[in-house]
Amino acid sequence: MKVYADNAATTKMSPTAISAMVTAMETTYGNPSSLYTIGQEAAEALQAARETVAKCLGCEAREITFTSGGSEADNQAIVSAAMLGQRRGKKHIISTAFEHHAVLHTLDKLKKQGFEVELLDVHETGLITPEQVAAAIRPDTCLVTIMYANNEIGTIEPIAEIGAVCKEKGVLFHTDAVQAAGHLHINVKEQNIDMLSLSGHKFHGPKGVGVLYARRGIMLTNIIEGGAQERGKRAGTENVPGIVAMAAALKEACDNIDANAAKVTALRDRLIDGLSKIPHCALNGDRVRRLPGNVNFCFEGIEGESLLLLLDQKGISASSGSACTSGSLDPSHVLLAIGRVHDVAHGSLRLSLCEENTEEEVDYILQAVPEVVQYLRNMSPVWRDLMEGKRQFIL
Amino acid sequence: MKVYADNAATTKMSPTAISAMVTAMETTYGNPSSLYTIGQEAAEALQAARETVAKCLGCEAREITFTSGGSEADNQAIVSAAMLGQRRGKKHIISTAFEHHAVLHTLDKLKKQGFEVELLDVHETGLITPEQVAAAIRPDTCLVTIMYANNEIGTIEPIAEIGAVCKEKGVLFHTDAVQAAGHLHINVKEQNIDMLSLSGHKFHGPKGVGVLYARRGIMLTNIIEGGAQERGKRAGTENVPGIVAMAAALKEACDNIDANAAKVTALRDRLIDGLSKIPHCALNGDRVRRLPGNVNFCFEGIEGESLLLLLDQKGISASSGSACTSGSLDPSHVLLAIGRVHDVAHGSLRLSLCEENTEEEVDYILQAVPEVVQYLRNMSPVWRDLMEGKRQFIL
Repeated sequence: MKVYADNAATTKMSPTAISAMVTAMETTYGNPSSLYTIGQEAAEALQAARETVAKCLGCEAREITFTSGGSEADNQAIVSAAMLGQRRGKKHIISTAFEHHAVLHTLDKLKKQGFEVELLDVHETGLITPEQVAAAIRPDTCLVTIMYANNEIGTIEPIAEIGAVCKEKGVLFHTDAVQAAGHLHINVKEQNIDMLSLSGHKFHGPKGVGVLYARRGIMLTNIIEGGAQERGKRAGTENVPGIVAMAAALKEACDNIDANAAKVTALRDRLIDGLSKIPHCALNGDRVRRLPGNVNFCFEGIEGESLLLLLDQKGISASSGSACTSGSLDPSHVLLAIGRVHDVAHGSLRLSLCEENTEEEVDYILQAVPEVVQYLRNMSPVWRDLMEGKRQFIL
Repeated sequence: MKVYADNAATTKMSPTAISAMVTAMETTYGNPSSLYTIGQEAAEALQAARETVAKCLGCEAREITFTSGGSEADNQAIVSAAMLGQRRGKKHIISTAFEHHAVLHTLDKLKKQGFEVELLDVHETGLITPEQVAAAIRPDTCLVTIMYANNEIGTIEPIAEIGAVCKEKGVLFHTDAVQAAGHLHINVKEQNIDMLSLSGHKFHGPKGVGVLYARRGIMLTNIIEGGAQERGKRAGTENVPGIVAMAAALKEACDNIDANAAKVTALRDRLIDGLSKIPHCALNGDRVRRLPGNVNFCFEGIEGESLLLLLDQKGISASSGSACTSGSLDPSHVLLAIGRVHDVAHGSLRLSLCEENTEEEVDYILQAVPEVVQYLRNMSPVWRDLMEGKRQFIL
């Protein structure tokens, strides 16, 4: 059996999205900046996509900027807020220790430019509280950037409440919603979100396309300079087919959001319940406030990478954390942020489901994972020490 | 008859490229950073595309960085060279007055950071000489950036000779080859090119994908921070389907480069010869050293925009210059750079052909343009003044 269970890393494009892409490649091939009919047809397709995305997020079309992906959108949001802050002498930024690297590394760059970055501690459940944010905001705070849902452990942050705190204090609030968009109900106005990033390929849309929502009146700083596309804020000929396909995928996801969430949540809970029976393991992240599709466990006494390779042999595609940082030998910064010690953090497994997954697939995973965990533990010197009492169990 | 004659703005994707894209969307959907088989298949597709592109440019695969397009590649090349220069106290950059805005606006940004930018004068033929470059290089010059072929007037610069000058003087040389790639023979090693940018959608590949070639040893500065993709130099999940399709389109273009050039050059020359018969017009850019598909004329006494709209009514898609700046009321900076006065520069028409165009289409254009030019002149007060001798003809 083949089971793709790494939908947080990337998703397979939906037939709807592929079809929209192909149609646009074949027929809407003009340059949207061109005056003639073929160009204007492309401009209209772009505008229709912008309106679709805006409707999904509860904002206006002109508040949407198309980017090459979630990372670019995160970069542009944060740099823009920082530049606005700098002009008013405000150089303090609040974020969290378990953000995506597109956020953390952009903040590192700003630190070198004299910004002060304060990373809030994350509770062991993987949650941040609005009170933490309120307590951290200073008169010189120019930005709060906190992710909507964590990409590794799937915890959903109290975004509307954090947004309300920021609004009250007059501080810009950005959220990296790459994992949330298309999966959770988002309404930027109701949730007091000033800026939001999303990525097409996380909800069965194409790779290479993202969105930056920025509330009207927030002046963006260009990351890419050149032509006057996207109201002069993002140069480069617009990727019309990709944008059209992304909008189609987002609309499809939002139209079916409740049904998909119900189905995927049931699969997720079945998986969490089954895996919890493995001895000396622990679920990472809050049990309830988590993405419908996210399952993330630590298993004591094993290496996550070996686990993945053996699961791959059984046809199961899974991850130990973020795909963006695989290849690194360091344990997940997210798991460290919620207090997992290095040894335990190394033995993590993320399974992320979508509405295409089935109960049979979940049952197949539930058969494979305990077998593989036991197999690896039998070979592990750490496990032997644990069993012989030479080392204390943590989980 | 419908004639698409704006291939310099964007091209229609080839069936080869669309097919490569669809196959990758359907089957190579993994995240290339993932360890499991589906991810590794995507990583292999990415590597194969990198090797294909490298072969087309005469470089090594590891010298290729995939970007979201030509503008991003231009930005990253120039910023990287500037940062390298700054570390050694070299803050003088040489470019030309008729570069694409992705270059000029990036240079503007660097000027605000204390860099000195010297724009070489462009000869009325649209050409720069290696001697001009040699004379401008100073001990504190960190970068020469000169486009391979101009996007509006199609002139082909003496890139190998400029590269040799830069190499001899130890100055980094970048070329924006967005209009040249897939249309002209490029070999970065033989031509002494240190950095080169290209864009997929200018040679029947997809929009939203570009390439930055940077010679081994040149440390790139990130434009987009985040994950460790592209050797840590360009964050964001790789757009595998787009990259694969772009590589397929580039290979197809390069495999057929001579046959296409011969065919398109013949069409171009037929068009230039025919349009030259219109009174009081002038070809912009050198007659010989120009892109196979580029035709660019100024017609005295008319507005280019009206010309385009009337040609569009006749089914002909053409441009007055760069699509990236349409909507602006200023005349083309390229035409001003080659010495056209404002009034004449406003009356420009760019027709850019590809191998899909036919002789019948060219003949249709040759019938339509003189009619439309005459129609507009009959309505033009400027033309009346010219005819009545109240104003002197320039062309």
